[in-house]
Amino acid sequence: MKKLLGTGLAEFFGTLTLVCVVVGSGIMGTNLSNDAGVALLINTVSTIFALALLILILGPVSGAHFNPLVTLAMLASKRISPVTVWAYIPAQILGAIVGAVLANLMFNLSAVQISDNYRVSTGTFIGEVLATAGLLIVILVLLQRDQGGLIPVSVAAWIGSAYFFTSSTSFANPAVTVGRMFSDTFAGISPDSVLPFIGAQLVGAAIGILGVKAIK
Amino acid sequence: MKKLLGTGLAEFFGTLTLVCVVVGSGIMGTNLSNDAGVALLINTVSTIFALALLILILGPVSGAHFNPLVTLAMLASKRISPVTVWAYIPAQILGAIVGAVLANLMFNLSAVQISDNYRVSTGTFIGEVLATAGLLIVILVLLQRDQGGLIPVSVAAWIGSAYFFTSSTSFANPAVTVGRMFSDTFAGISPDSVLPFIGAQLVGAAIGILGVKAIK
Amino acid sequence: MKKLLGTGLAEFFGTLTLVCVVVGSGIMGTNLSNDAGVALLINTVSTIFALALLILILGPVSGAHFNPLVTLAMLASKRISPVTVWAYIPAQILGAIVGAVLANLMFNLSAVQISDNYRVSTGTFIGEVLATAGLLIVILVLLQRDQGGLIPVSVAAWIGSAYFFTSSTSFANPAVTVGRMFSDTFAGISPDSVLPFIGAQLVGAAIGILGVKAIK
Amino acid sequence: MKKLLGTGLAEFFGTLTLVCVVVGSGIMGTNLSNDAGVALLINTVSTIFALALLILILGPVSGAHFNPLVTLAMLASKRISPVTVWAYIPAQILGAIVGAVLANLMFNLSAVQISDNYRVSTGTFIGEVLATAGLLIVILVLLQRDQGGLIPVSVAAWIGSAYFFTSSTSFANPAVTVGRMFSDTFAGISPDSVLPFIGAQLVGAAIGILGVKAIK
Repeated sequence: MKKLLGTGLAEFFGTLTLVCVVVGSGIMGTNLSNDAGVALLINTVSTIFALALLILILGPVSGAHFNPLVTLAMLASKRISPVTVWAYIPAQILGAIVGAVLANLMFNLSAVQISDNYRVSTGTFIGEVLATAGLLIVILVLLQRDQGGLIPVSVAAWIGSAYFFTSSTSFANPAVTVGRMFSDTFAGISPDSVLPFIGAQLVGAAIGILGVKAIK
Repeated sequence: MKKLLGTGLAEFFGTLTLVCVVVGSGIMGTNLSNDAGVALLINTVSTIFALALLILILGPVSGAHFNPLVTLAMLASKRISPVTVWAYIPAQILGAIVGAVLANLMFNLSAVQISDNYRVSTGTFIGEVLATAGLLIVILVLLQRDQGGLIPVSVAAWIGSAYFFTSSTSFANPAVTVGRMFSDTFAGISPDSVLPFIGAQLVGAAIGILGVKAIK
Repeated sequence: MKKLLGTGLAEFFGTLTLVCVVVGSGIMGTNLSNDAGVALLINTVSTIFALALLILILGPVSGAHFNPLVTLAMLASKRISPVTVWAYIPAQILGAIVGAVLANLMFNLSAVQISDNYRVSTGTFIGEVLATAGLLIVILVLLQRDQGGLIPVSVAAWIGSAYFFTSSTSFANPAVTVGRMFSDTFAGISPDSVLPFIGAQLVGAAIGILGVKAIK
Repeated sequence: MKKLLGTGLAEFFGTLTLVCVVVGSGIMGTNLSNDAGVALLINTVSTIFALALLILILGPVSGAHFNPLVTLAMLASKRISPVTVWAYIPAQILGAIVGAVLANLMFNLSAVQISDNYRVSTGTFIGEVLATAGLLIVILVLLQRDQGGLIPVSVAAWIGSAYFFTSSTSFANPAVTVGRMFSDTFAGISPDSVLPFIGAQLVGAAIGILGVKAIK
């Protein structure tokens, strides 16, 4: 139980930091540049460095999921117990929200905002499916091959690629998606986009988990 | 036979993903930025992260060629059998086409398009020769030295460099060249440019294979 | 004693080079680009490559602190003796100042300048707290796990991320903060911003040291 | 003797490729972007990827100097014989010139050009001194510690940093300096700048070699 508290806290602070980085670097990018391509470059570089580090530092503590779909995939492959899921997912969602609020405060903006960035289309639905499927394939294949040490860099590389090649800029994470609702800035997402994005992520996760069975 | 089906599928999905990334990130780059340099940076970063990951993940399955010239070079050095070639090359070409179509759909564009981006000149011919020769030298020298583990990062580094320093932006891959014909966007190539590009790639591959014999 | 001279010199030259890189690449960025986002990209890439190298090269000599807070954290965890602190911190501060002067000279500017870039706000205070806490957590956790070999790349990754996601662009280092006062360019900081920044860094360092105790 | 021919050819082709990358990516950068910062980013990324790869691939063949100052430093530390120097330096200079010509041709420009980009000032002199001193320190310290395997990435990181933080954009190589005279494009250097630059590089090399003696 005490261990679960520690790992839950790691998930909380890890997801908090991740969303703070995603939202904060998005604000920095648009504050500094008039070119949205440069802003996304800044957003991406900042995100993937922090993501790789967070997995490196917190991996030995909690597994460094920071993502309900990763947690569910770990359950499906019997790497964690059901009670862990109940601790992790709320911690991730709460962490994501606090991370967005912290980023807002760090840039002297109102603490709690609601984004009006509507992101749903057929294209972005496909984008989220691809981004999430690829994310789970990378993680699960490396675990299956006992190459867990490559996960920090590999997950960062996948997200770094998918920020640019998917039309949705690759949320690929329901907790992060919920958190990003609370900042009306570059990285924000409007509330009515959240459920369709999470739906696409679930489809992508299912495809990813099936796809992994084909890769030995 | 069953194994060949699996490896052929890996080549199909790998090349599909690669072209989807190349075309998709090209669209993202030009959607976001008015600066073609920034667009090419986005295109390059996205491509090389995915390329390294695809080789890492699918290398143990099919060898992760995703490129008919790599497949032919593996045949020439007797690392694969002729029947493998007949499975891989169609899978690569088909994957490349489907990848371009998927990228179009992901950005809410018409699924099938034909690029009118004419890219042929003496300069780009030289560019493709250099890009392809270098690609094969990197792969074959590392295999020859039993440093296959360095191939994912090294191929990505070469393509990352060659996207910028070759005047052709380094296609270096006949299957990918065919696939990129089907998107009239940043990464597209007009049908009448395809054969000259493939010709240059064949010349480059021959130079690369010869060059490797000089490097022990 | 002779050893302390050598390690003190390593801290001097390491911090000198670090600040010369930070200030110099900031000048280069604003000289070349009208886009502050591009300038910060240039500033960041240059900084993190040099930072990782400096830790790699000088780590075996002095520990490669280049930062009074790292030195104090090493004292707190009994990895160094008090006399080392008295040698290192002045060497770091002096090195930082000389590094800024050298950067000014390298770009044909007046050798000694005082920045008028006022950077203090609630937001940047939070930014410095986060940047410094994260820096110490990364270093101390990796040392605690005997993964010191990962420190050069990990510290560079953290600073690379924090340059973009913290509103303060992540000084996270009192010596570097003092040094950057002496260049009225992109990376400069006004004298009246220095104490508040160092205050925030001290708070961040305390949080980081406490945070590490929670991560086993 | 036959071995010397092989290693000399490796130096020739290595330096040729390096300068072709430097000049070619400079042309690409200015062709695509109106922002000189973006052009230098493109120039840098392309250069460092190729540089790391060239050292990785040709290191086991010739040592991958591609730089007369590295060759002289290897002689000074008795790692190579005097006759090697007489083979390598002409091969490097010739390779550099051919590389610039090839880049010109690749972008459909006149094959042989003379740059009128005058780059000499007190500031750029200091820049070249720093860039060259750092380059030799990185190489020699890593060799001294039997960490030669880190040289490809470390040299690339140093050059990547120094392209941005030195006012001279870090030539740090007499052969490359001579070669870049032959392209009147972004990466070019006017003939009357070449000797002052080589002078600064010699000063930097001397400082670097002395500096290494202080780092054990």
